[in-house]
Amino acid sequence: MSDQHGTEYRTEHDSMGEVQVPAAALYGAQTARAVENFPISGQPVPAGVVHALARLKAAAAEVNAELGVLDAERARAIAAAAEAVAAGRHDDHFPIDVFQTGSGTSTNMNVNEVVARLASTAGGEGALAVHPNDHVNYGQSSNDAFPSALRIAATLAARDDLVPALTHLAAALGRKEAEFADVVKAGRTHLMDAVPVTLGQEFGGYRRQVELGTERVSHAAEATAELPLGGTAAGTGLNAAPGFAAAVIDRLSTATGHSFREAENHFEAQSAQDAVVELSGALKVVAVSLTKICNDLRWMSSGPRTGLGEIHLPDLQPGSSIMPGKVNPVIPEATLMACAQVIGNDVTITTAGAAGNFELNVMLPVLAKNVLESIRLLAATSRLLADRCVDGITADVEHARTLAESSPSIVTPLNRFIGYEAAAAVVKRAVKERKTIREVVIEDGHVREGRLSEAQLDEALDVLAMTRPPTS
Amino acid sequence: MSDQHGTEYRTEHDSMGEVQVPAAALYGAQTARAVENFPISGQPVPAGVVHALARLKAAAAEVNAELGVLDAERARAIAAAAEAVAAGRHDDHFPIDVFQTGSGTSTNMNVNEVVARLASTAGGEGALAVHPNDHVNYGQSSNDAFPSALRIAATLAARDDLVPALTHLAAALGRKEAEFADVVKAGRTHLMDAVPVTLGQEFGGYRRQVELGTERVSHAAEATAELPLGGTAAGTGLNAAPGFAAAVIDRLSTATGHSFREAENHFEAQSAQDAVVELSGALKVVAVSLTKICNDLRWMSSGPRTGLGEIHLPDLQPGSSIMPGKVNPVIPEATLMACAQVIGNDVTITTAGAAGNFELNVMLPVLAKNVLESIRLLAATSRLLADRCVDGITADVEHARTLAESSPSIVTPLNRFIGYEAAAAVVKRAVKERKTIREVVIEDGHVREGRLSEAQLDEALDVLAMTRPPTS
Amino acid sequence: MSDQHGTEYRTEHDSMGEVQVPAAALYGAQTARAVENFPISGQPVPAGVVHALARLKAAAAEVNAELGVLDAERARAIAAAAEAVAAGRHDDHFPIDVFQTGSGTSTNMNVNEVVARLASTAGGEGALAVHPNDHVNYGQSSNDAFPSALRIAATLAARDDLVPALTHLAAALGRKEAEFADVVKAGRTHLMDAVPVTLGQEFGGYRRQVELGTERVSHAAEATAELPLGGTAAGTGLNAAPGFAAAVIDRLSTATGHSFREAENHFEAQSAQDAVVELSGALKVVAVSLTKICNDLRWMSSGPRTGLGEIHLPDLQPGSSIMPGKVNPVIPEATLMACAQVIGNDVTITTAGAAGNFELNVMLPVLAKNVLESIRLLAATSRLLADRCVDGITADVEHARTLAESSPSIVTPLNRFIGYEAAAAVVKRAVKERKTIREVVIEDGHVREGRLSEAQLDEALDVLAMTRPPTS
Amino acid sequence: MSDQHGTEYRTEHDSMGEVQVPAAALYGAQTARAVENFPISGQPVPAGVVHALARLKAAAAEVNAELGVLDAERARAIAAAAEAVAAGRHDDHFPIDVFQTGSGTSTNMNVNEVVARLASTAGGEGALAVHPNDHVNYGQSSNDAFPSALRIAATLAARDDLVPALTHLAAALGRKEAEFADVVKAGRTHLMDAVPVTLGQEFGGYRRQVELGTERVSHAAEATAELPLGGTAAGTGLNAAPGFAAAVIDRLSTATGHSFREAENHFEAQSAQDAVVELSGALKVVAVSLTKICNDLRWMSSGPRTGLGEIHLPDLQPGSSIMPGKVNPVIPEATLMACAQVIGNDVTITTAGAAGNFELNVMLPVLAKNVLESIRLLAATSRLLADRCVDGITADVEHARTLAESSPSIVTPLNRFIGYEAAAAVVKRAVKERKTIREVVIEDGHVREGRLSEAQLDEALDVLAMTRPPTS
Repeated sequence: MSDQHGTEYRTEHDSMGEVQVPAAALYGAQTARAVENFPISGQPVPAGVVHALARLKAAAAEVNAELGVLDAERARAIAAAAEAVAAGRHDDHFPIDVFQTGSGTSTNMNVNEVVARLASTAGGEGALAVHPNDHVNYGQSSNDAFPSALRIAATLAARDDLVPALTHLAAALGRKEAEFADVVKAGRTHLMDAVPVTLGQEFGGYRRQVELGTERVSHAAEATAELPLGGTAAGTGLNAAPGFAAAVIDRLSTATGHSFREAENHFEAQSAQDAVVELSGALKVVAVSLTKICNDLRWMSSGPRTGLGEIHLPDLQPGSSIMPGKVNPVIPEATLMACAQVIGNDVTITTAGAAGNFELNVMLPVLAKNVLESIRLLAATSRLLADRCVDGITADVEHARTLAESSPSIVTPLNRFIGYEAAAAVVKRAVKERKTIREVVIEDGHVREGRLSEAQLDEALDVLAMTRPPTS
Repeated sequence: MSDQHGTEYRTEHDSMGEVQVPAAALYGAQTARAVENFPISGQPVPAGVVHALARLKAAAAEVNAELGVLDAERARAIAAAAEAVAAGRHDDHFPIDVFQTGSGTSTNMNVNEVVARLASTAGGEGALAVHPNDHVNYGQSSNDAFPSALRIAATLAARDDLVPALTHLAAALGRKEAEFADVVKAGRTHLMDAVPVTLGQEFGGYRRQVELGTERVSHAAEATAELPLGGTAAGTGLNAAPGFAAAVIDRLSTATGHSFREAENHFEAQSAQDAVVELSGALKVVAVSLTKICNDLRWMSSGPRTGLGEIHLPDLQPGSSIMPGKVNPVIPEATLMACAQVIGNDVTITTAGAAGNFELNVMLPVLAKNVLESIRLLAATSRLLADRCVDGITADVEHARTLAESSPSIVTPLNRFIGYEAAAAVVKRAVKERKTIREVVIEDGHVREGRLSEAQLDEALDVLAMTRPPTS
Repeated sequence: MSDQHGTEYRTEHDSMGEVQVPAAALYGAQTARAVENFPISGQPVPAGVVHALARLKAAAAEVNAELGVLDAERARAIAAAAEAVAAGRHDDHFPIDVFQTGSGTSTNMNVNEVVARLASTAGGEGALAVHPNDHVNYGQSSNDAFPSALRIAATLAARDDLVPALTHLAAALGRKEAEFADVVKAGRTHLMDAVPVTLGQEFGGYRRQVELGTERVSHAAEATAELPLGGTAAGTGLNAAPGFAAAVIDRLSTATGHSFREAENHFEAQSAQDAVVELSGALKVVAVSLTKICNDLRWMSSGPRTGLGEIHLPDLQPGSSIMPGKVNPVIPEATLMACAQVIGNDVTITTAGAAGNFELNVMLPVLAKNVLESIRLLAATSRLLADRCVDGITADVEHARTLAESSPSIVTPLNRFIGYEAAAAVVKRAVKERKTIREVVIEDGHVREGRLSEAQLDEALDVLAMTRPPTS
Repeated sequence: MSDQHGTEYRTEHDSMGEVQVPAAALYGAQTARAVENFPISGQPVPAGVVHALARLKAAAAEVNAELGVLDAERARAIAAAAEAVAAGRHDDHFPIDVFQTGSGTSTNMNVNEVVARLASTAGGEGALAVHPNDHVNYGQSSNDAFPSALRIAATLAARDDLVPALTHLAAALGRKEAEFADVVKAGRTHLMDAVPVTLGQEFGGYRRQVELGTERVSHAAEATAELPLGGTAAGTGLNAAPGFAAAVIDRLSTATGHSFREAENHFEAQSAQDAVVELSGALKVVAVSLTKICNDLRWMSSGPRTGLGEIHLPDLQPGSSIMPGKVNPVIPEATLMACAQVIGNDVTITTAGAAGNFELNVMLPVLAKNVLESIRLLAATSRLLADRCVDGITADVEHARTLAESSPSIVTPLNRFIGYEAAAAVVKRAVKERKTIREVVIEDGHVREGRLSEAQLDEALDVLAMTRPPTS
């Protein structure tokens, strides 16, 4: 049979009856039903989840064989087929929309069907038939397998993609911290002129924010490394062979090089997705950190002539279709948009995470979509921020110092000589009469009247020294 | 009986049995139970809701008398008592925490009890006993009365408090729009130097944002003016006399001077609180507008010496406990915090609004708390922003013009003479060699080679003219 | 030149220098730079925005020709090329990531470049060269063109996709309202047994929610129909010919069949994206409505044996990989996930909308991504909900009535005969002793003692009558 | 001088001039200015922050004396006065609105002024004058003192209030886990009948969620235990004596019995409030957990006759003003509202946390308001949930078992005897013909045809056994 576009179809069946499936498809009836049922976003389930599910199927087949509940031949065929799927060699055969059944059953069955078909056909004519449910899915339910795959994918993305990216960014910031250690500039609080700091100190603060972000993500990825696998349909583990989950998870840990563990309580692990909400919360803190950093970078580089102009970001592309010669802070901007996305995704994840009932949370695919998007966005922008922005930042050292010295707040060290209120009077007059702090202090008679010597005054007004008060 | 603090108690009873109630309390058994049951936030239900409920009780008693289902004497006594509560004369007798039963039944009963007691005792010895449920609550359920009160309170707060405050702020911004009509300054896009604008144009943009906010809030307050009253327990109107709701709502409209109307569909109006979610959404847009405006004000007034320094905000209070003479943009800051609160409240309201089941949403008190707080915060900060900040803003006209003229983007009008790419080359050299655009254009030979005359060049580079391109 | 994958490249240049561009690409230097600069999400700018930008370019060329600032030949070539892009015939040539420069300049230039190339080559050998900036972008800036395209795309998607989908859903709900008009069932408030309602009344409430949603979206799409076009770089309209924007917008209205209008205040329209935040707020209310409706549907159809079992949803696919014969409410689940996404997207949009500074909001692409995704998700799930769920719902009429009659709250109509407290005592005993309300009323002597006759009792306890109290 | 209300005033001055202060007020000029400047929410800064600030002032005075920068007499007077404030003995003298200057400077000065006045007057006639800035605030800035106080207050509230409350709730849930260990009931996934579980297993899942919540909060409260103190105005520590911060923090740790530590990087600690965002994220996960638990409790107790009716919650108060005898799950409802508030507060905190610029985040008071409210709400509702709900829950053992046995999913253990598809056919017929699974299995001939014996069938269909599959 073929349709109007000339696509050939074959007839498959499942427990509800017959379905037409594209002849070339590796998947079967249930996948075809789901493709038909969910024409929603046009976005498939993230590949990371499909790959993790397949990896899990491979390990499950091997363990089931060891436990004597699956014959060795089928187990080998399943494992080989599943490995190929896990390696991304059949990504085109996973067409189901991410907005689908809330348990991800459709995608679990998609994996079961593709693996079963590959395994059935691999052995050639005489091969044993492999059944998607009775063999590939043996000892599992979508209800423990899909959230396990979601957590595996999120944990790996966090550890292998995001943490290295943040570490990379922290290193870039740290190099600028060192490079700019002596670049004195005006501090700003409430956006108003404050006591001086160094540009290096500011980058040191950014570095520390990102380092803490790395710790936050790593800690939260411990939570998602606890897998529901073994609970099967409702957390009780019905139909799984004793020891199944622990053995499968061991294999997954070995295969990925990351330590996963079986859920301490399968009812919690399956009916709640709090671990994913926790991870998203950590991602959100990173987004908050990067937002602050990128806004600072944008403002410090604002200008070239009407802004603060303390630093210069690398020029990457023309900035305007109408204003010639304009160059914009495009990487910080892209990062800020990524952060806004992560902040919103966290609300989606929170809403979804709170929506569980009894033995299952049926918001799993949308959790997967959002947490994996957040990780990807933060990782990609962190690397870009390091490589195409931070690394190339240069300081306008002279301009920065000029501003620092012009800040009325450099009067602050004089508090201990002339008191807070007299110092405030100095500032008021200096700003009003456009004089320097030094000029007004002398005019006001503080030196003459012996509150401090001229040498003390000069020492007190040294802006770089102000950034390094004695610590002992 | 008295407790360890010496408080005297009397014994009351309700359908569940006996309860001890403070002897001086106007409320009765159910209120006392609820005070005991909900020691949570320490915050009572907003007074606006209590007053609206009382107003509704007064109107209900009068209408029930007209409809012949309540005797005139009791009706008069109830109406008088309820009016006193509505006027805020007994606020101390509404001690139940806002985090309580999700229907607000405890607060509805609190009103019923206080009104019944006041009504019963007002008539003196021979007065007819007034029962909280059988008389004061006649024809109503908490399920229609409480959400009606919530919507009345929100509508009145929006119309009588917020809309005038926004109108007031728009007027203040409009005055500055006129005052600063000729103050030319650098435009900024991506925070980078752009073509010039006037400060008045910027304030005109703010004015328009706030005017649109006024429209948004007014429109959304139409939605909350539709009241569930008349649906009683489940939307069917069981136990309410025919015509009851319409007549009560007429009286409420007259009493408040605002037009309210009966729900077109009582099942929608009672089981969903979408109208409140809609109103909160409009409040959130106002918060977004004010955030943008306040950030601009903060940045334009940044300095006095290391920032942009284009405007000056009124000095309201010393800004630092350590840096003498520092003055900060405190009203914009307070407004920004209010906006952050409104943005978060909107998520609470969204979460609560989505949580209804079947015939009732049982998140009503938290909806009331958040929507009324949001309105109050926006109204208060809008007024402060107008009176203590915008009204007193002065421009540093000379500095603003100097910056405008220094912006490399003033090259933009030359596109039509020398093309985008040659103009970009002019900018690049001007910035690099710290020359003016005019100097480089001439040095590059564009005048000499006849692309434009010197007069055209000067006309093209007039920054104030650039802000007013010909419109016909 | 060709790279390691064998891709041939050509050399292009822009105002910053030379760039390698794939030989087959219709785009030029700036697009190539942006593809290189933003390897972030893997998601392109939504096609709707690209098409709207192209539509705008076509109209702009024609208007510029009319206004005498562009020669007719180039204008015709540009218009033809832009129409082809608008029709989706060159979608592959818009590869830039949606996380890019915050003004969308890269995508605006991508459109400018593709249109310029198509227009330049269309005329064959002797054709006039068409320049992306000087001709295609004439009279525009990314700063007014991109947000105009964003609003056009959002308005069209709202009006042509979402509003019809919601109307369709409301109609489906309305049909069930009629069909189930006499299906009496237990009302539930606080999830506890309440007075009876009909299933039709519940569906009527849903219908009304969705109808109001249609109004909300239509109203908000009025706001996004106001376009920034004409403001160019900073709102002043510099470099646009007088009358340009109004004429272009007229053509856009004609071409799309929807009424668009020029911004009343270009500074507001360009520096703020409040209209988009407003639209997202309306989408969020729809998500809140659908969440309530879908949860009700899920619960009413829960079972088949251990849940409420009042209705049956159409079976669409096997529900479990391990529990045979299980069928799940997959369309409501997919819809709930879509709603969670919309709720989170609204926070992203709020965050982005509040992030503007001075003359521009540089979060435009992320606004586009989120608002268009939200519209698509709501439209798609609304249609599926109507067609594959609501239309096929059947009621278990008998079971629903049995439950209705068993609810202790059917005592409520007796309040007026025996009073609230005696009625409460009846309920307490009925529940405890597993008797019917009728039995206990008689046993308690209310008939014997003349409070009501047996006929009155039976009339009062008629559950269907309870759902239709007299209205006059 | 006295005003129209008869309040007496005295004249005070600060660096900006003279101010009228109520004669009885312990505070001075800057507090009076702030009261006047911020008539916004009517809510003061949370007492916990004021107390923590005062505690910090006491320790600072003692340390400054030790370091020789403050005379011992003044130090003693300051410490004594500050201790009194920290103990809550002067709470009425902190009237400033929480929506104020974003640095909390007004509240820091309020504490400085009250402590200075108390210290100055304590010593009687001859006492040394104590100055709010020069003595009480010595070595500090609002910019390090206020966020330190915020973190101290949040850490103490988390550790002393919330963690014990969660531990208490987990214990209550754990007792029910044990009590209900053998109460078999229907599992539910997608709200549809699933394989059986025990009620104890469900409560075990809840217990584990809450225990993990305890860990999440404890971990995050480590982050907030790192204090900015020592950075003074901009992170550099200007004007603080060497060793000052470490010594003060040691004293604070001793005084509170909790370990606090000095920030590793003062620029991060002061310019960012990521630690507070992190803590709020953990609170939000707890809110998500409690939402799931409370919804389960509400549904399991739904009825008494038309719902699931598997458990009974303690009756706390009459549930309806119109439906006699109705009792509602009021504590779960109050908890759900608290959770919705916490979820929204997290967005406020996120928005505020991302809003820092350069050396300071000026959203500190709104951070304090929200994080402390969230902690209080979760702590209070967790305790109530334990004491007034969970502790009193009883199970309807018989009804729960009846439902469990009626669930078609009990066919699941037969997969290994008859295969998934034949089992699905059994379910379909059983549901359609209202037969038991056992009946249909026998009718379908599975026993007769030897796929399993009748004994195996009965063993496989034992619902309690299904909840405890063999584990070895």
